[in-house]
Amino acid sequence: MQHKAINLNEKFARISDLWSPRVVAELNDYQFKLVKLQGEFVWHEHPDTDEVFLVIEGSMAIRLPDGEVSLAAGEMFVVPRGVRHQPYAQQVCQVMLVEPRGVVNTGDSGGEMTAPNDIWI
Amino acid sequence: MQHKAINLNEKFARISDLWSPRVVAELNDYQFKLVKLQGEFVWHEHPDTDEVFLVIEGSMAIRLPDGEVSLAAGEMFVVPRGVRHQPYAQQVCQVMLVEPRGVVNTGDSGGEMTAPNDIWI
Repeated sequence: MQHKAINLNEKFARISDLWSPRVVAELNDYQFKLVKLQGEFVWHEHPDTDEVFLVIEGSMAIRLPDGEVSLAAGEMFVVPRGVRHQPYAQQVCQVMLVEPRGVVNTGDSGGEMTAPNDIWI
Repeated sequence: MQHKAINLNEKFARISDLWSPRVVAELNDYQFKLVKLQGEFVWHEHPDTDEVFLVIEGSMAIRLPDGEVSLAAGEMFVVPRGVRHQPYAQQVCQVMLVEPRGVVNTGDSGGEMTAPNDIWI
């Protein structure tokens, strides 16, 4: 029996909206989510968990309380729990997020950029 | 202050041995590890955790009890907890593993391919 790999580019091709993470895999109680970013997100934090950003295609940056980090394809960054951050991208950027199941994209901030959770693709 | 991203290719360039995972990041109690594979690993399982394989460069496959899965760059697979598996690669393949801190590469099998754990790069 041939098992099927999860092909990230195939998954990204099916995502048309921005800032709306889609789950592609679970590892125990953690989720791997794909998201397309462009423009500025809201400042927010996740009080209970670290959050991994891994850029698959394009480039983005994350503003942090004391500066920022720039990320190109093949680069990753861990935003520590409780640290406020604001992701942004000039052009559409394809990103993999890794975080525990149940984490909401806007964290403690809420608002209109809050995406539904647990949407698989 | 400019924070520094983790550049996967820079990290891989510093790994010269095979089958010996190096930690590049932690997300809560989970670790992101980079490893170069070539040849056949030992059949083994991790009784207590799932394990993610994400191919960054090259290609590999994982034999499973009921078949196998082929993985090219940009593809991932979750080996469920307790499922025996044997990774192998014809050419050198660069892989990111994600799993809880403390997971040993050879799982329940041990043997000479067991790598030291928690080695950061």
